[in-house]
This record gives sequence, structure tokens and C-alpha cells, in this order.
Amino acid sequence: MVGNTSNQAGSDLRVGVIGVGHGVFGRRSDASVQELAFEAYREALQDAGLEPDAIDASVIGAVPEYHKQRSVGGVVQEYLNLNPKPTWLTEVACASGSAAIRTAWMAIRSGLHQVVAVIGCQKMTELTTPEILALMGRVGDVQWESVFGTTFPGYYAMFAERHRHEFGTSEEQLALVAVKNHYYGARNDKALFRKEITVEKALASDPVASPLRVYDCCANADGAACVILAGADRIREIGAGDRTVWLDGLGCATASMSVLRRPHLTGLPSAEDAAQQAYAMAGITAGDIDVADVHDCFTIAEIMAYEDLGFCAKGEGGRFIAEKQSYVGGTTPVNIDGGLKAKGHPIGATGVSMAYEIIRQLRGECGERQVPDASVGLTHNVGGIGQYCFVNVFRRE
Amino acid sequence: MVGNTSNQAGSDLRVGVIGVGHGVFGRRSDASVQELAFEAYREALQDAGLEPDAIDASVIGAVPEYHKQRSVGGVVQEYLNLNPKPTWLTEVACASGSAAIRTAWMAIRSGLHQVVAVIGCQKMTELTTPEILALMGRVGDVQWESVFGTTFPGYYAMFAERHRHEFGTSEEQLALVAVKNHYYGARNDKALFRKEITVEKALASDPVASPLRVYDCCANADGAACVILAGADRIREIGAGDRTVWLDGLGCATASMSVLRRPHLTGLPSAEDAAQQAYAMAGITAGDIDVADVHDCFTIAEIMAYEDLGFCAKGEGGRFIAEKQSYVGGTTPVNIDGGLKAKGHPIGATGVSMAYEIIRQLRGECGERQVPDASVGLTHNVGGIGQYCFVNVFRRE
Repeated sequence: MVGNTSNQAGSDLRVGVIGVGHGVFGRRSDASVQELAFEAYREALQDAGLEPDAIDASVIGAVPEYHKQRSVGGVVQEYLNLNPKPTWLTEVACASGSAAIRTAWMAIRSGLHQVVAVIGCQKMTELTTPEILALMGRVGDVQWESVFGTTFPGYYAMFAERHRHEFGTSEEQLALVAVKNHYYGARNDKALFRKEITVEKALASDPVASPLRVYDCCANADGAACVILAGADRIREIGAGDRTVWLDGLGCATASMSVLRRPHLTGLPSAEDAAQQAYAMAGITAGDIDVADVHDCFTIAEIMAYEDLGFCAKGEGGRFIAEKQSYVGGTTPVNIDGGLKAKGHPIGATGVSMAYEIIRQLRGECGERQVPDASVGLTHNVGGIGQYCFVNVFRRE
Repeated sequence: MVGNTSNQAGSDLRVGVIGVGHGVFGRRSDASVQELAFEAYREALQDAGLEPDAIDASVIGAVPEYHKQRSVGGVVQEYLNLNPKPTWLTEVACASGSAAIRTAWMAIRSGLHQVVAVIGCQKMTELTTPEILALMGRVGDVQWESVFGTTFPGYYAMFAERHRHEFGTSEEQLALVAVKNHYYGARNDKALFRKEITVEKALASDPVASPLRVYDCCANADGAACVILAGADRIREIGAGDRTVWLDGLGCATASMSVLRRPHLTGLPSAEDAAQQAYAMAGITAGDIDVADVHDCFTIAEIMAYEDLGFCAKGEGGRFIAEKQSYVGGTTPVNIDGGLKAKGHPIGATGVSMAYEIIRQLRGECGERQVPDASVGLTHNVGGIGQYCFVNVFRRE
């Protein structure tokens, strides 16, 4: 395991985030994918107080096949006026943005680049819903599963059913996750859905894949987010030290693509593994997390995340939300930006959007959504149906 | 610029390749993409003398949209029995494999992982040729160019025409590139086309996009290749030092997606930039390269590569091949494995396939195709129509 602070010579090897940007998520018929990327990138540059020529490289988080433009990273790089700087794209389904952040961390820590812009961007609404469902279904195992008609809601409905069977997690507890995330989404001007809902409204919504209903599911969206990372030495040169949020713990793990081969269906083994890696690297435990953004593609996914990340014991996730422990003021506030559920889920952008929220929480910039005195934050970004999970720990000094 | 040998404390920070594997390229109706990946991975593990649990992570080089399986990295990771180890996929069109190698280098150099398997894999022949052409055309700028019908052969035909106009590069000189690459491909048991051709046969082949003919174009293929990288300390522990080939120079640059905005059409600015980066990092010049694998998606691309990489002066590429300077025995032997032209071009696998060849050349394992006393080698891997280029320098001590 790599240490998080210094090498044998005592150099400060930390990598931190010095600028963040985020566009409005939703049906963005006003903008192409490169225009969405520019919106977030420009805001991040301004936030960092950097001139464009300070950027040494970019890493693009996106799922390519949703765009008419093949190899979308190239057109983003050109539109952001970043040629001839290096770029490449990372793809791990809905965790593509977190893979890009991990890659940027490695690029800087390895000494290959000093300042790297990570751009998560995705244009989804040009496709029809059936087209998107067909693409998403094939993120399940094509050879053994999706050929029989599995879909994303179907997989997560299985997780929810099993969680109910083993732990009694109720449809009302699922709905309470949606209520919380809409409550905070209504207070986030970057979110797709900016309205509160009630438990009754959620429970009365149409079934999608039993027990999941419309309000248990996040929505496809267009959007982009950007974070700019740099090494400690460069941050000192720039003079950005006092606003820097350090990326101190990185976890990444995989699980079998086929859910048939998973040890259980009540959580994601990849999330448990990734969390342990990130905690160990950052030298913390779950109890040290002041605020978290987790991958609530479905309400059951947030409940499983509470448990996989150690915010509560196994099987206690339903009670955790019922007791409002994931609200501001609870044990561990979660998805105070509205989560995927209320923000919308432009798949390549989501991991970077999570980092944007956590960094702004740690900088104390979240206004009425601010978690008081937050100094350690976490992102939990799942790819596919848990075949990938990336957990990152951020810290403000 | 990062140094290539040690940090301030004098640790040996070098990253080297300790194992390589390569399947047969071609129409592989006998194997799924994960089976192709396994074929190459198993060979690389055996070559390295490693047990599977020695692998800490994998990076997959592939272009996702060619596969029915979405997020193909996950299914490869499972099939290779690499769960729960981390993985993610890199995409930069036809340079995706080289981006994966760059990522693995960073992962190791940063201290995050110690031994990383890079797997380039691509299944193309399940799609029809019109489907592939449609996908490939959209690797050009969709907003300003491909909407008017540009195709890959069309772009490279423009480069060839301009090169002829400025430097007199002839159709016969283009054909001589194909003759060389088929000559060596006939001696490579991993190649798709294992037959020699004559200049007359190449010049008599059907036109594709004037002046390019069938024999000026590489062929779509299925295939996979694997290289396993590790850090110097771990290599010493494993005892693999004497067979290690070090990755000492890395270059990556971009150019505008739109060729309309390029400074000229007689070469790839991204290749010139990437080569300078790689040479500087490795502390060498073009004259030090003993053997190279370059991106000959079309014959004109190889001629431009001679010039962009500095193997000959600008405009002299046609004469370079006519004088057989890129044959074994010439100034700089190029594509002694047959190149994309004769091996076939499974786009995500190609960059890793190039590394495979160069590493085996530097280890002296290429039999009748061996370049005598080769100690420094280079790979040059272009993405799209030059919007990306990755150049890597390998060295055997």
C-alpha cells in the first residue's frame, strides 16, 4: 500500500484538488457534449484561478457509446483548446468519472504531469429511452444474463428483494431515501429535479421492477463536471494551498460481472473492498467520514452503500435512513447534493460530480446544504451492477 | 519532465515489462473477446513466470462500442479470474492499448500498484464492414467533417495527396511499404496476412480512396495482446531482472480532431510532439532507435511516421522506404512484425501488440525477423486521424 504523504526523501507527495466546476444536469438540448464539458471546465479554471496554459493534461471520464461522436475525448480536448496537451478517456460504466480521477492522481504522483484537469461528461438524451435501456442492460453479463432480458432496474430489484428477505428492509425505507435526496436536490441549483417529494408520493408512483417504483430510480441526464488536481509542490507555487482539498485515500475493486457468481446479493463486494483500501490509505475509519456522496442509482443502492462503507452495520441500512442518520445532523450525512436520484445521472460525469460536491462541502461552500465542520469526505461510485467500485477519501486541513 | 531512473532518495523508480503474450490476429470466430484476452494474458503470465495472484491490477485497452457486451473490461476481468483486483479501461480510438500501457506505468511509478497486467483486446468481425466504416468515420469530427461523408481512407488519402504534391511521394513508394510489411508478416505466426506481395500486385489492386488502394490499407481484425509491468524493486524480488525491458520514455500528445485546423497535412503534429517527449524522457535521439513499430493503418501513415519520428528528414519518407532503410539492415528497421498492414488491426489491441513485438526484439527472440543487437526500441501508436499519438521508448540493458 502506498503511503499518502511523503517519500523516503521527505518530499511532500500529496495530490490535491485546486479547482472544481459543474454544469446544470438535465435534458441539455442547448449544448453538445463538448459544450457541456467546456461549461464545467471553465468554471473549474476560474475556481482555481488558473490560466488555461497551466493545465498539463486532461483525463476524460465518459462512456463512449452514448455519443454520435466516436472517441469523444478528442473533440472535448479540441473544444477546450487543450491541444497539443495529452488526453485519454477512462471507461468503467457509471464509475468512469472516478476512474478518471484515479488516473489523474497517478499521473501527478508518478511525476508525469503536474496539473491535470479531470472532465466527466455525458450526453444521454439524444438517445431514446429504449435505446438507453438496451445499452444499459448489456452492462450486465451479455453471455449469461442480459440475453435473458435482465435490465438495470431488474438487477437492483433483486438486491432489494434479497435485502428485504434477509433484513426486513421495507418499501417505505426505500422511499425515505428518495425523500431525503429530493429534499436536498430541491436546494441544489445544479440538480435535475428541484422539488421535494413525500413518502406517500413515492409509494404511489408506478412500479418499475418490483419492489422498485419510479421514485426509487435515478434519471438519465446530460451533464458535465470538472476537478483540477495538482501535486503539493505545484500547489505551493500556485499559492492555492489554503483552499486545497487533498485526495488522501483511493480504493478500487471489482466483482464478477455476473451476479450469479457473487457471494451474496445484499451488498456490493467491490464497494466493501474499495472502502477498506481507501480507509487504510487515508489512515481513517468509516466513523471519521463527515460527509459522503454515494452511488444511489436506485434507493436500495444507497441503503447497501451505508452498510458496505461501514456507516452502519450490515442489515441496518433501512433503519439508518428511517432514523435520518444520513441527513445533515445525523451520524453520516449522505448525498446532500441530492444524489444521482435528484441531480440526475449523466453516467460519465457522475463520479466527478460527486467529487465536486464533497470538495465544496469540505471548503464550506454549500450554503443551506452545508454540513457543519466537515473536514473528511468520501465518494462512492459504482460501475455497472457493482462489477466496479471506486471509493475516494478527501481531506481539508 | 519526470526523470526516468531514481528519486531524490536514490530509489530505483524504473518500470519494466516482465512478461508478454499475443494471440493470433484475424477473424477469430472461435473466441469471444474475453477468450481472446485470456489467450494473451495466460501467455504473458507464463512468460513472466508469475502466479496469477501476483497481479495487483489490470488496465484494459479497448474501444467499447465494437462489442455487444457494454463495459467490456468487467467481463474480461471476471474471465481472467482477476476479481476483486482493480481494473479500468482506456479509450483513445486506435491508440487505446498505448493509453493502457501509459496508465499502468503511472500506476506503478506512483506506488499505487506493483504489478499491472495491460490487456489490449478487440473483437471487430462480429460487425459488418459497413457498420465498422460508419463507426470509424465518426472518429473524425462529427459536427464539421464526418457529416459530409469523410471516412478513414478518405482522410489518409488527403494526407497522401498532399505528401505527393509537396514531396513527390509516389504510389510506388506507398506500395513498397506494403511489400515490406507483407514480407515480414509472412514470417510472423501471429499475423493475419502471412503472404508476400509484389509492388505490381499492390499497384494493380482496387482503388479505395485515390491514391490509396486495397494494399495500402490495413484490415479489421479480432485479437488481443498483453504486457505485464512491474517496478524495479518488485522485479528484483521476483528475480526477473535479466529479462526485463524497461519503459524509459513516454510521450503523448494531441492535435485537433478536425483536420481543417491542423497546421499541415503532410504529417501528424501529435506524433512529432509525442516523439520529442519520449526521446527527452529517455535521454535519447531518433538515431538511437534500433527497431520501431509504427502505426501503418495506411501505407502513407508509415511514411509520415518515418518523418514525424525523425528517422529521416521531412519529405524523405518515400525515399527512405525505396532505399529499404526501414528493413532489417537499414537505418531504422520498422514494423518487422508486419505492422498493422499484415498483422491486422484489432484497434484496442494494436498498441499492446506493438509493445509485444518491440520487447521480444529487445530480448532477441524474433528468430528470422530478429534485428541484430537491438537494445533500444520504440512504439508509435496513433488514435483516430492523429488527434492522439502515444510514443513509448523501451530499453534492454
